[in-house]
Amino acid sequence: MKPLRQNQDETTQGQHKEEHFMAPDLIRDIVIGMADGLTVPFALAAGLSGTVSNTGLVVIAGVAEIAAGSIAMGLGGYLAARTDREHYLSELERERREIRELPDREREEVADILRQWSLPEETVQSAVDAISQDSDRWVNFMMKYELGLEEPEPKRARNSSLTIGLSYIAGGIIPLSPYLFVQHANAALVISVIVTLIALFVFGYVKGRFTGSRPGKSAWQTALVGGVAAGIAFAIAKLIS
Amino acid sequence: MKPLRQNQDETTQGQHKEEHFMAPDLIRDIVIGMADGLTVPFALAAGLSGTVSNTGLVVIAGVAEIAAGSIAMGLGGYLAARTDREHYLSELERERREIRELPDREREEVADILRQWSLPEETVQSAVDAISQDSDRWVNFMMKYELGLEEPEPKRARNSSLTIGLSYIAGGIIPLSPYLFVQHANAALVISVIVTLIALFVFGYVKGRFTGSRPGKSAWQTALVGGVAAGIAFAIAKLIS
Repeated sequence: MKPLRQNQDETTQGQHKEEHFMAPDLIRDIVIGMADGLTVPFALAAGLSGTVSNTGLVVIAGVAEIAAGSIAMGLGGYLAARTDREHYLSELERERREIRELPDREREEVADILRQWSLPEETVQSAVDAISQDSDRWVNFMMKYELGLEEPEPKRARNSSLTIGLSYIAGGIIPLSPYLFVQHANAALVISVIVTLIALFVFGYVKGRFTGSRPGKSAWQTALVGGVAAGIAFAIAKLIS
Repeated sequence: MKPLRQNQDETTQGQHKEEHFMAPDLIRDIVIGMADGLTVPFALAAGLSGTVSNTGLVVIAGVAEIAAGSIAMGLGGYLAARTDREHYLSELERERREIRELPDREREEVADILRQWSLPEETVQSAVDAISQDSDRWVNFMMKYELGLEEPEPKRARNSSLTIGLSYIAGGIIPLSPYLFVQHANAALVISVIVTLIALFVFGYVKGRFTGSRPGKSAWQTALVGGVAAGIAFAIAKLIS
């Protein structure tokens, strides 16, 4: 399977169009939100289990964390995406103004970008002529190769943030659910550790499949981050209580 | 001040080299970690304040969250950066193999990338000749314009993850500190809300300065995400307790 990383996805040229279908983006967002949702509420609940015996309080703290984390990720991500888009549009406006007001300097910038590939000077000039013939083409070239900016898709950003936020909630429910059904915190912790590590392995594996890294490695790394976070949260909470 | 966004920073061409100095990256990482560290521990502490009157427990939960969040962000970010680098190197290896084994197809891919800018065919051919003359140049061109991949800097990724993780801890201490000095949770909450909203405004402002968005807007958006997260965490915790 070919890697489907977001950055690559967005900047890949036309010849790979056939790989742009919707499912992987959706799955990637679900996996990102879930893997994070599994990690932090898991570690928090584990940390509290070391100091309180009442699972009711672990559940309240866990639910508060899931609410906070999903909003920070979802709303925060959505606002960041909107800012990215505004930034793109203001840079686009600036490039449009520059090719109107300082066409010679902008032609020279196109030439500089092409010269770094050691093209013969007459090829550079002919390419600059062709690119600067059409102002949209010219501006697109500058946005892409001078500034390294691709046009953000606002609708995808909104859907993506919503999916990540909801998946964070779904992920957070997994480590927390044992505390709902088992009365004593230590017993619930054991079940939570087993269930969550398995879930982190599975999500790490799926994440690896969709981000271009080796699935097995992604699986143990995802579980490692969750395990280390939970272990340290547990130790610190024990220490200060 | 010119925007210094990471993505742009990494893909900007040579003519803007003068903007690549270290301070903004460091400041950006500090602000990213701190803004997140302010948000989630703040909201968690606020949520718990609605249900427990003892600040000791709020502090334990808050510290456990800070430990978990900073490890998820720091260690998680570091491992993701390492995966990115491995992905880059494996793609590099693949491109190297492809220009060796399928040079005609790879020449055609270079030509296709250039043709999208409506260059005359003889200019395209002359450019393809120049680019494919040197195998490093050819591979770099494919990495950059076919795959949209820039070489990740491993050292910067490690430093960046460490800075973000530590800043998350520093940020988290701000909303939590009132609970250390004030005995009753409700009183501590009021101080925490005031102190944290001011801190979120300041960090949002600084973040805006270093990410190319309007600082004033970034300030209220950062405070909004924190405020909404805290408000909802508080309401939910009250509801289920």
